[in-house]
Amino acid sequence: MQNYNHYLNLINEAIGNIKYPEQPAQLYAPIAYTMSLGGKRIRPVLTLMTCEAMGGDPSHAINAALGIELFHNFTLLHDDVMDRALVRRGKPTVHVKWNDNVAILSGDAMLTMATQIVSRVDDDLLRPILDLFNTTAMEIYEGQQWDMDFEQRSDVTVDEYINMIRLKTSVLLGCACKAGAIVAHADERNASLIYNMAVNLGLAFQLQDDYLDVWGDPATFGKETGGDISNNKKTFLLINAMNRATGDDATELEQWLNIDESFHEQKIAAVTAIYERLGLKELSRQAIEDYSQRAINLLAQVDMSDDARQAFQALIAKLINREK
Amino acid sequence: MQNYNHYLNLINEAIGNIKYPEQPAQLYAPIAYTMSLGGKRIRPVLTLMTCEAMGGDPSHAINAALGIELFHNFTLLHDDVMDRALVRRGKPTVHVKWNDNVAILSGDAMLTMATQIVSRVDDDLLRPILDLFNTTAMEIYEGQQWDMDFEQRSDVTVDEYINMIRLKTSVLLGCACKAGAIVAHADERNASLIYNMAVNLGLAFQLQDDYLDVWGDPATFGKETGGDISNNKKTFLLINAMNRATGDDATELEQWLNIDESFHEQKIAAVTAIYERLGLKELSRQAIEDYSQRAINLLAQVDMSDDARQAFQALIAKLINREK
Repeated sequence: MQNYNHYLNLINEAIGNIKYPEQPAQLYAPIAYTMSLGGKRIRPVLTLMTCEAMGGDPSHAINAALGIELFHNFTLLHDDVMDRALVRRGKPTVHVKWNDNVAILSGDAMLTMATQIVSRVDDDLLRPILDLFNTTAMEIYEGQQWDMDFEQRSDVTVDEYINMIRLKTSVLLGCACKAGAIVAHADERNASLIYNMAVNLGLAFQLQDDYLDVWGDPATFGKETGGDISNNKKTFLLINAMNRATGDDATELEQWLNIDESFHEQKIAAVTAIYERLGLKELSRQAIEDYSQRAINLLAQVDMSDDARQAFQALIAKLINREK
Repeated sequence: MQNYNHYLNLINEAIGNIKYPEQPAQLYAPIAYTMSLGGKRIRPVLTLMTCEAMGGDPSHAINAALGIELFHNFTLLHDDVMDRALVRRGKPTVHVKWNDNVAILSGDAMLTMATQIVSRVDDDLLRPILDLFNTTAMEIYEGQQWDMDFEQRSDVTVDEYINMIRLKTSVLLGCACKAGAIVAHADERNASLIYNMAVNLGLAFQLQDDYLDVWGDPATFGKETGGDISNNKKTFLLINAMNRATGDDATELEQWLNIDESFHEQKIAAVTAIYERLGLKELSRQAIEDYSQRAINLLAQVDMSDDARQAFQALIAKLINREK
């Protein structure tokens, strides 16, 4: 097994080698721009690592990996339109740099390109890879729709939230691993184990994202903390707080949720204090630990060399004990 | 061979049998709504007709036909967002009935569903069907982008316009026919001939749409005429007029293109008169005739029974000599 950067370099090379037609420029330039913004490339790295760990040749999985990364970036592009996000990876989002129509249409083209690229596998793998990819895509749209629905609701349960993040973010990590397993001709048992490992890793990762937004060190987290609190984002923490707060805590939380944004700093401090009084820092750490442990337990059951397993363990540690 | 309504009924039955998950409702209800709005279903009918004409069993082509119709309706859904269209087939568009975000996301889901449905073919047909479908989808996005680009340009050539409508509307008719040919295991020669037949038919059809918007009978055309003129839409007629008008005609055309919309009625009458002075009614009829004739000539070269060929000839006549 190679290290993360080895697979990352393979992916970045493949991304650099994508040939976009020159015209119409407004269709293809936003796709090239989006793919050039970088990122951790976790999903395609997982595809290549899984393929190699399960005895396959990772070079045979490069198109599946690349297509999944393109798909992931398509979802970010359209999500940024829906969320009216101005910045992505420190650069203007596509709908800001161009306009909404360009973002919608180039996103559509990116989805079809992603489908074309994942389809560049041996004929006997085409159907399982394509079915996995399309099923996962549908789950991700469902997750995004639930996320938007939850913004309008005040009665979201923790289970509903976990299901939403599973759909919106975790199943694509599962898909990335399973695609690598399929290319390596792994059996169904191993493919399912690594899929479920990645789904649990994804849940731990997303819950940690919610945690770091409140208790992360801005210097290492890479962005200002408190953004979720400021925006009343329905995270694991806010949903638990809304479900658990009683008496004065409930009244105070309700007031902060409706306060005007000039009280930004005070709101972050006060809501963080409520979270801490409700024990959510510990609850949250425990949930992250539980999902991470499930991922590690599933990994232990997969047939792979000790060397390969250590590489995955290192990746889990890197993703979960991250400070950014 | 059966008649148009026979194939139409098969398609409408298949559309009625699509099972949409109940939740999340805002993701799936807009898809069901869009598919329930009806329409001529020309594309899936072409798939079934071609399959039968080339010796295949049309019931084996129903998923390819259905997926293509779903894809077509996805493009309308997203185009309506981009064009800010309020009405589609006499009903509110999805972004009006729900909102832009619902329209974007349910459109994305519709594209993936379309890909899933066209993929429900025998394993040996999966790659050719999928490649045809994805290649066509990319061409259609290019056509839509050119169409939007042309709105900002005053130097569009007739060739550029023809290429745009070929991409935006004709290749999907070609794809519909070729998909039927592939399911029928037609050889490459026959599949290409029927593809090119449909592309030429599509060009004739689109040029006729431009023609009817000016000279159609509103009672039979089914909508008010003059809409394209009123909106300065860069049709075959306006592009030819901009390229051909000289002297007073050029000055007058320029003035009408910049006039405020309270002069709606006068503008339609005046621009129509300019088109007629420039001989565009005849030029347009001739172009429609030329593309129709090419379609008929290509059809004549396809290996099929006389009965089948007559069914296609009747369809061409129905589509081109239509008054609506």
